[in-house]
Amino acid sequence: MNAPTSQEFLVAPEPDSGELAHEVDGIDQDGKPIGQQVVHERPLTIYLNGQEIVTAMTIGDHPDWLAVGYLLNQGMLNSNDEITGIDHDADLGVVVVRTARKTNFEEKLKKKIRTSGCAQGTVFGDLMETIEAIELNRDAIIRTSWLYALTKKINTQPSLYLKAGAIHGCVLCQADRPLVYLEDVGRHNAVDKIAGWMFLNNIAPDDKIFYTTGRLTSEMILKCVAMRIPILASRSGFTAWGVELARQTHLTLIGRARGKRFVALSGLERIVFDADTSQADEEDRRHTRKGAGGDD
Amino acid sequence: MNAPTSQEFLVAPEPDSGELAHEVDGIDQDGKPIGQQVVHERPLTIYLNGQEIVTAMTIGDHPDWLAVGYLLNQGMLNSNDEITGIDHDADLGVVVVRTARKTNFEEKLKKKIRTSGCAQGTVFGDLMETIEAIELNRDAIIRTSWLYALTKKINTQPSLYLKAGAIHGCVLCQADRPLVYLEDVGRHNAVDKIAGWMFLNNIAPDDKIFYTTGRLTSEMILKCVAMRIPILASRSGFTAWGVELARQTHLTLIGRARGKRFVALSGLERIVFDADTSQADEEDRRHTRKGAGGDD
Repeated sequence: MNAPTSQEFLVAPEPDSGELAHEVDGIDQDGKPIGQQVVHERPLTIYLNGQEIVTAMTIGDHPDWLAVGYLLNQGMLNSNDEITGIDHDADLGVVVVRTARKTNFEEKLKKKIRTSGCAQGTVFGDLMETIEAIELNRDAIIRTSWLYALTKKINTQPSLYLKAGAIHGCVLCQADRPLVYLEDVGRHNAVDKIAGWMFLNNIAPDDKIFYTTGRLTSEMILKCVAMRIPILASRSGFTAWGVELARQTHLTLIGRARGKRFVALSGLERIVFDADTSQADEEDRRHTRKGAGGDD
Repeated sequence: MNAPTSQEFLVAPEPDSGELAHEVDGIDQDGKPIGQQVVHERPLTIYLNGQEIVTAMTIGDHPDWLAVGYLLNQGMLNSNDEITGIDHDADLGVVVVRTARKTNFEEKLKKKIRTSGCAQGTVFGDLMETIEAIELNRDAIIRTSWLYALTKKINTQPSLYLKAGAIHGCVLCQADRPLVYLEDVGRHNAVDKIAGWMFLNNIAPDDKIFYTTGRLTSEMILKCVAMRIPILASRSGFTAWGVELARQTHLTLIGRARGKRFVALSGLERIVFDADTSQADEEDRRHTRKGAGGDD
């Protein structure tokens, strides 16, 4: 069995970049000294033109993608907006996205205060309006053999998760190839960074598959639909509202994908069953995400 | 091996309460129809006296504890505040906490907009001020035998996690006894519900142990210290800022607790190594949280 090479990925985690994690001293269950890798989280304040929009806690890689993706997924940038500049000041923890169009979200920011709960830093009312107008590609498919190949490649790719744990990963995929694998302390950041990368590289969403380590909550479904990606798969489970939204938007929703097992609750017509699942139990043990780290 | 009884718990999950989860139809990896339990998430708007404070996404049990705990952990209620009433309207999704003291958080709510990122729905500046004045009980201990007994009892207790997955659990413990086990879609809600329960039942925090399934992020450390609980343990991993805050506040921080393994990174002097760990590997397989559900 050959380990997958990072050449398969256009963008892959860089766990050995010294700025994303460092080792701290601790002890194990026997009281023996050990070194533990811990990921950094730092504040990044996102501006759109002259206006401060939000401060996100992030591992800090790719602030340009995070800023653009966040603004897109919040509906503050449009798909036809021209970005005239992105300025990042690492010392200040500030990133400024500049557009040709004049923007003003004073009212939207006021609304955010009133509606957003802690877990969902999103303006649901606004996102829902956007979402209802979107028609996801009905002709997209996912073969079960692709899903198994993808999870195997993703789980064995060197990552901050394997190195330090306590981090989420999101991966933009096409057929059985993982294209862009990004990690962050908050899964919404990892999603937003992928959205930003897609926008800046002019990538079509309608034949893509989105894989996440995080739960399939309403927020995750809304972001995936906003990105116009027709298929969403996760190793984690579902919430009732997430399932309802996926069904309303005809998103293909696959959860609890571990080894060869999975559960699909929406958009079943896009799934092509072409893999042998007779070894499901054995595969479960070999292919799950390694390490004891929490992917909370 | 006897299954632990729920009599050990003062408050335990009620996974069979029909209002917290329901079954939806789906298919598995072979295309066979299956039923999947999914947890509900619904908005709950918290008022303090006449003022709307926040809308949280929650599974919806114990809105009174959630509201009181949220307000306490945000520093909007004080430990000596007299609560004169808690009104919950399930249809409107509203809970109102009334106090003898007049409250006004107009300024605080404005500040929140500017500082809080998506993952951390918390006003860090304010929490840090509170935290710096707190001295955690130096004489509290945790025996490793207690930790192993606790995780075993918690992991085998019937719960929404075992039934549906995609949910977090937090448990208030004393020695080897789990007292209050609460679950929610967001781990901050589960923490806040425990804080509310403690306040309303006048429970002393200084000999308690807090167990969570979630990651040991800065937010989790700050909430635990705000609750004055000296020991925090999790099955998940650490972030760098979380470790730094735990060390500053002399909180005992134990992570990656699975089976008999764990890593401790702060407050090591409270840990008493009294358990045999020679079977660590075998125990790992038997005692980990069951089910494929994501505890994202």
